[in-house]
Amino acid sequence: MKVLVVGGTGRIGTAVVDALTPGNEVVVASRSSTVGVDIGDAQSITALFERTGTVDAVVSTAGATPFPVFADTTTDHFREGFDSKLLGQIDLVLRGIPHVRDGGSFTLISGVLGREPVASGVVASTINGALESFVTAAATELPRGLRINAVSPSVVTESLDVYGDYFPGFTPVPVADVARAFVKSVHGIQTGQVYELG
Amino acid sequence: MKVLVVGGTGRIGTAVVDALTPGNEVVVASRSSTVGVDIGDAQSITALFERTGTVDAVVSTAGATPFPVFADTTTDHFREGFDSKLLGQIDLVLRGIPHVRDGGSFTLISGVLGREPVASGVVASTINGALESFVTAAATELPRGLRINAVSPSVVTESLDVYGDYFPGFTPVPVADVARAFVKSVHGIQTGQVYELG
Repeated sequence: MKVLVVGGTGRIGTAVVDALTPGNEVVVASRSSTVGVDIGDAQSITALFERTGTVDAVVSTAGATPFPVFADTTTDHFREGFDSKLLGQIDLVLRGIPHVRDGGSFTLISGVLGREPVASGVVASTINGALESFVTAAATELPRGLRINAVSPSVVTESLDVYGDYFPGFTPVPVADVARAFVKSVHGIQTGQVYELG
Repeated sequence: MKVLVVGGTGRIGTAVVDALTPGNEVVVASRSSTVGVDIGDAQSITALFERTGTVDAVVSTAGATPFPVFADTTTDHFREGFDSKLLGQIDLVLRGIPHVRDGGSFTLISGVLGREPVASGVVASTINGALESFVTAAATELPRGLRINAVSPSVVTESLDVYGDYFPGFTPVPVADVARAFVKSVHGIQTGQVYELG
């Protein structure tokens, strides 16, 4: 399969690329890689698909959300996160549809905060909840047998040194397990699933 | 209690006002009522609270979402719905906090499409999923004992003549039952709940 991994240079993205590389032609795209893309910019997404041509699967581990203290949170923080992790990934699907082969797939990244909140995580929770309902709904309407799933990991074990304090008592998940869920989505047959890890 | 009902002139809003009126001072606000508000406009929300003064509870049955055919859906449709039903209701909470008495409450409206999709409903599904995760997260961070819940109804029985065809096989819910869920949220003690109806 030809698999486009957007955000393929981050911690999870790199692991997904490593997991998919045996047996697949993997195209890595990110803001910093040779195949550049900013999913917050619609024209950048269009240019990406013009460059990759037709693919069998699109995987996204991309998108950022702000973590403002609740008392300081404004709609600007929500808009910032919507433009990146939420609408960026949604637009990757909407613009990607014509460029994915019949029966191909999209796999997006959500996160544990959609189901369990943490301090300063209200924007992230909102975005993850939105993404999971988007995947559930889009799965029923995608044409040509296209599939879509989301992977929703807890804090990644390998990132505990940086993020551990924000996730007290949360079961961490090894990044290899997260990558395996993406492989399941790409090579499996399910659609409309949210693979929860941790 | 002094209860502000935003969107209190629509079908659900009117029923909520009727259910809350005995024993409460109800202030009705909508685009068309004497106390006007457009929740898509931040300044309008600020002006609303300056006019109402301190309240014990804020109830929202407001916000619209577009229902584009999936193949024609763009991020503009999502942005349109975000500005109204999603960010409009979120901003009602963020800007309302200083104007709600200690221990008071917010009750927002979500909808069945967050958990079960229908044709052309991908924007609505995404928004309802977002709202429910927002409520779950915000409940943990609201100050001064403030509470927040969402009411998530199926298609309303009294609206079946208009919307019934969009919800084939969905169990409809009488509008009085929906209104009762809002009363439970306002006069109850729970927080972070999504009251699912139908």
